[in-house]
Amino acid sequence: TTLDSFKTDVSETYPDKPLESFMAEPITNKDLLQKNSYQARMEVFILKLQKQLCQSLEDYEIKQNNQVRFKVDRWTREEGGGGITCVMQDGDVFEKAGVNISVVHGKLPVQAIEQMRARGHQFVARNTSLDFFAAGISSVVHPRNPHVPTIHFNYRYFELVDVDGKIHWWYGGGTDMTPYYLNETDCKHFHLSLKETCDKYDNSYYSKFKKWCDDYFNINYRSNERRGIGGIFFDDLNQPDQESCFSFVKACANTVIPSYIPIVKKNYQQTYTTQEREWQLLRRGRYAEFNLVLDRGTKFGLQTPGARIESILMSLPPVAKWKYGWEFKDDSPEMKLMKVLKEPKEWV
Amino acid sequence: TTLDSFKTDVSETYPDKPLESFMAEPITNKDLLQKNSYQARMEVFILKLQKQLCQSLEDYEIKQNNQVRFKVDRWTREEGGGGITCVMQDGDVFEKAGVNISVVHGKLPVQAIEQMRARGHQFVARNTSLDFFAAGISSVVHPRNPHVPTIHFNYRYFELVDVDGKIHWWYGGGTDMTPYYLNETDCKHFHLSLKETCDKYDNSYYSKFKKWCDDYFNINYRSNERRGIGGIFFDDLNQPDQESCFSFVKACANTVIPSYIPIVKKNYQQTYTTQEREWQLLRRGRYAEFNLVLDRGTKFGLQTPGARIESILMSLPPVAKWKYGWEFKDDSPEMKLMKVLKEPKEWV
Repeated sequence: TTLDSFKTDVSETYPDKPLESFMAEPITNKDLLQKNSYQARMEVFILKLQKQLCQSLEDYEIKQNNQVRFKVDRWTREEGGGGITCVMQDGDVFEKAGVNISVVHGKLPVQAIEQMRARGHQFVARNTSLDFFAAGISSVVHPRNPHVPTIHFNYRYFELVDVDGKIHWWYGGGTDMTPYYLNETDCKHFHLSLKETCDKYDNSYYSKFKKWCDDYFNINYRSNERRGIGGIFFDDLNQPDQESCFSFVKACANTVIPSYIPIVKKNYQQTYTTQEREWQLLRRGRYAEFNLVLDRGTKFGLQTPGARIESILMSLPPVAKWKYGWEFKDDSPEMKLMKVLKEPKEWV
Repeated sequence: TTLDSFKTDVSETYPDKPLESFMAEPITNKDLLQKNSYQARMEVFILKLQKQLCQSLEDYEIKQNNQVRFKVDRWTREEGGGGITCVMQDGDVFEKAGVNISVVHGKLPVQAIEQMRARGHQFVARNTSLDFFAAGISSVVHPRNPHVPTIHFNYRYFELVDVDGKIHWWYGGGTDMTPYYLNETDCKHFHLSLKETCDKYDNSYYSKFKKWCDDYFNINYRSNERRGIGGIFFDDLNQPDQESCFSFVKACANTVIPSYIPIVKKNYQQTYTTQEREWQLLRRGRYAEFNLVLDRGTKFGLQTPGARIESILMSLPPVAKWKYGWEFKDDSPEMKLMKVLKEPKEWV
């Protein structure tokens, strides 16, 4: 298809030229990283995907002859591990883009373990903290042009060592898109890309994870207005076996670029009016609201002592507006979007 | 003094010309309002103060020959009562100003009663909802010029009818200011105005309520950065007697205009640079963060079924920015403000 040029196939193999394949030095040392553990394979995979995505986005600034590039901050965490935060700001095409990886380990407090138990995990441990490991990539891209949607994705691997020595592990994540103006072809392309990837693993995944996404990104106090047109969202995935789960997560993450970059390419040079820009900023106000009021990941991060707040809040829009009592005509493009946000649609 | 012209002395007396003294028709009917109850006196007082403040702010737009005025929304609540939300947007002097009153009554759920008990109120009731009445005024003013601070205040009266028929009542509220650039004279004037009002009632009030304010408007996850330079904040005030409490709340609310409007007058015509505007918008990002992540009133409102969300969120800034990793020189005016936000100062 014409989209073949966007295909990404980032693998978890340790690269021959790590300096060129990663945005910064890995968090874990090289010897450990070259082992065949799921921890190492996940870290290498997200390091490489981070590089690939940052490059794809920078390419658009380069095309515009803009000098703006990703700023790379590698940070470590006293309690164990660290991360690499890459942020590009004030681009011509991307007003703000953040691509963050983190690989952290240490002791997980009782309260967090209880929340996981409540979600269905069966641990032997009671009232004791446990060793954990978490590696993940998360990203939010806010384009300048209101005709290019915002994208967010996040894929993560989690391990918890129970008191009996058993390692509980699972994967989670998702990709979702937030357009300011509805382009049905683009929405279909985005959802179809996700569905095709899901279908390779389990025919029930797409519809289940699509619904999960619609339910999660819901601003309940705004009469159940969704943040965007959804995508997929899942957590606690540990079936049918670890190799399949890891393979599925890689496939989803490899779908980010082909599902999104063609939409950027198609729309970033569209002209737009000040009213369209205004609407984009109002919608970004809602984006900020969701992230600050409702997003579990953000809330968890803000409550975590020693967390790197700047990395957590890189997801916030560069500029947002709030206007009291705005109104649009029933048949306006703005209200067409609102309708879909209030009643999520089946796109494929 | 030169500030005498800003003196406000709004009273709780039902006015001869209600149409000219209120922004809209009162929530409660006229017969009830003319009674001498604390409920009626509070409602009349906040109706009149709302009008006075809206006029003071509109005066600046009129002086600029700007046509922008307050939009008045009177709303009612199915469960009982209602409110008047007044918002002025896109003014030359005031980018967004909201002045909201609400007078609501109905049944207070068990959970809310338990929160009040936890704060020290002694109710006979157990596991039952109770009749409540609440009347309050709240306001946020976001001026356009970065040399004019944002102000917020809120004064409220609460009644709860216990199962034994006893009426528990208390007052709460506060006024606090959020400058973008520190002007020591203005900060002193603001705090001194509040202190003089407090001192008329109790010599311990100002220092106690100033500390309460510094502790409340604290963004803990931003290394304990305060939202602004504080002011006063108190809750559950029911001592020494109701007449004194109501009188104190009226005095505090009557201090809003003389403590703030002279600062507007002095600074609104100052020139400012794009960098100063940028800094204002970054600080407004923090303002939005505090309100959405931490403010108890906002959180309570967003969780209340049937609440008027647009009135609750009128406090959000018209425009806000988030920038990853901004830095300023140690001796810059921006860092001078940051220092005071991280270590609240005694201004008087």
